[in-house]
Amino acid sequence: MRVPRNLLAALRKEDTFLVAVHIDPDGDAIGSALALLSALEVLGKKAFVYSRDPVPKYYRFLPDHDKFSSRLNDMIKEDPVLILVDCNTPARAAVEGLCFRKSIVIDHHETEKDFGDVRWIDHTAAATGVMIFFLLKALHTAFTRNMALNLYTAISVDTGTFRYSNTSADVLRVSAELVEAGAAPNMVAVNLYESWDYKRFKLLVLTLNTLEVKDRTAVIHITREMFKETHTSSEDTEHFSNFPRMIGSIKMAVLLRELDGGAWKASLRSRGDVNVARIAEQFGGGGHRNAAGFKIKADLKAIKETLFSAVRKFST
Amino acid sequence: MRVPRNLLAALRKEDTFLVAVHIDPDGDAIGSALALLSALEVLGKKAFVYSRDPVPKYYRFLPDHDKFSSRLNDMIKEDPVLILVDCNTPARAAVEGLCFRKSIVIDHHETEKDFGDVRWIDHTAAATGVMIFFLLKALHTAFTRNMALNLYTAISVDTGTFRYSNTSADVLRVSAELVEAGAAPNMVAVNLYESWDYKRFKLLVLTLNTLEVKDRTAVIHITREMFKETHTSSEDTEHFSNFPRMIGSIKMAVLLRELDGGAWKASLRSRGDVNVARIAEQFGGGGHRNAAGFKIKADLKAIKETLFSAVRKFST
Repeated sequence: MRVPRNLLAALRKEDTFLVAVHIDPDGDAIGSALALLSALEVLGKKAFVYSRDPVPKYYRFLPDHDKFSSRLNDMIKEDPVLILVDCNTPARAAVEGLCFRKSIVIDHHETEKDFGDVRWIDHTAAATGVMIFFLLKALHTAFTRNMALNLYTAISVDTGTFRYSNTSADVLRVSAELVEAGAAPNMVAVNLYESWDYKRFKLLVLTLNTLEVKDRTAVIHITREMFKETHTSSEDTEHFSNFPRMIGSIKMAVLLRELDGGAWKASLRSRGDVNVARIAEQFGGGGHRNAAGFKIKADLKAIKETLFSAVRKFST
Repeated sequence: MRVPRNLLAALRKEDTFLVAVHIDPDGDAIGSALALLSALEVLGKKAFVYSRDPVPKYYRFLPDHDKFSSRLNDMIKEDPVLILVDCNTPARAAVEGLCFRKSIVIDHHETEKDFGDVRWIDHTAAATGVMIFFLLKALHTAFTRNMALNLYTAISVDTGTFRYSNTSADVLRVSAELVEAGAAPNMVAVNLYESWDYKRFKLLVLTLNTLEVKDRTAVIHITREMFKETHTSSEDTEHFSNFPRMIGSIKMAVLLRELDGGAWKASLRSRGDVNVARIAEQFGGGGHRNAAGFKIKADLKAIKETLFSAVRKFST
């Protein structure tokens, strides 16, 4: 992976940086930003990491996660160069309307806008963490254990710990180097997958009890009553829609969550030829081919029936 | 990893081989044996793969899995050299009492007996698949896509797809080479983790509903009635005890399965300092520090209470 020279030049030349991640940051955004922060500090720079939203609790095992701050005004005073990590527009990072001396973008998502004085966007990269790995190599900063752990986690999150189709030989090779530098695969896996609150697990069991399967579609739902009963919230439902996908015959899995006032939020996940973005659009929502969503105000039973017929229509 | 010279010499010198795996073979045994079979064939040797038990259905995506045979007599006639793979005694491979001209052992498990004219046993290897990888390299047989897929799956199974503590930098590097040679990580993961029968998933949900948590111990159980209701059998319960381990506070997870005549089979899984082998021994069973089991004839409620108090006693 080739790191753009103007990016290296900008990082070397400038003295103060504000590293910003997207709203609702995931492990790739958080781990990438923290590793970059460490590298900038090693280079003798002043750097901040900004996130509008708090670091989700299941990522709080990451070293330096407490360096994230949402106090933008304190950082802006220092007149920093902006570095957007794992996103590519100011709005996505909640820094829109602010003025920066210079702006840098490091991301692996598709771009619609061409924001940034220096742009490094590689949507073939499995994770922004992989890009930061090569950036740190090009900057010749040694990998500390903390940098390695942050980057290994970033890559783990965006590849489903080497289970998604973006897992390439390079991804595994980069991860091997990070393990050599001190990242512990089992420790990361336990923190990501085996550190659930008991109440969250109870909610999962209640949710799986609602499973209905028809026409290769699995639908599960969570009522407000279920959240109340288990003292949980929507934050606890991450990855729930992956569970019905363990069934080999399932082409689409849907999680319905009850909102206030009789509305429901649907999260659609598919594999193969079912385009859930097209299904979501029918309901005024949107998303990607294999992950999409929408909101709807209707009776639960009616929503389910409509979904079952939609998958028949769109799996061609 | 250094491959013993006498092993290479024996494989080069001899002409006919019987590659045998342990009873109830897992993915590491099956994938390793099939990759070795291919390599021997490339070298112009005659070779058989023997398994007393059929290849479990969830490993039937592996190339050449249909080459496994249990017809030992047909193979013995050819006067082959025995190669035990992923095990180290004839009894474990169900070939005890038979006479072979020569015997070879390739395994990463602890040994109690010193069976084998040529022995390569490395219990630091994460999987026998890793050892076969280095063996094939030393034999200079090129990696075909099929060999790569078999070995990648072998390593995936024994490392929990890079989540267990045996996942080293070397494991990731070897896997990178196998991906380069044609193994597809997502395809393997979908076959291993997302190809459940619907009835198996139904049994899982029923089982999770029985969850009881006390003293950092999670107990789930399956009655004969539940098997009957879902048209499943004990084969379908593999990995069930991993699910309660998703709860961060759990130190031991127990799966109880009802047998005929009022008996129960207990599978114990722990992490950290809980030695489940010692708990299983109290009930006349045995196993390893973090995975053990026993059979007991008692009332379900009584078994659970005894287990809850056992973990208090043995977590020191």
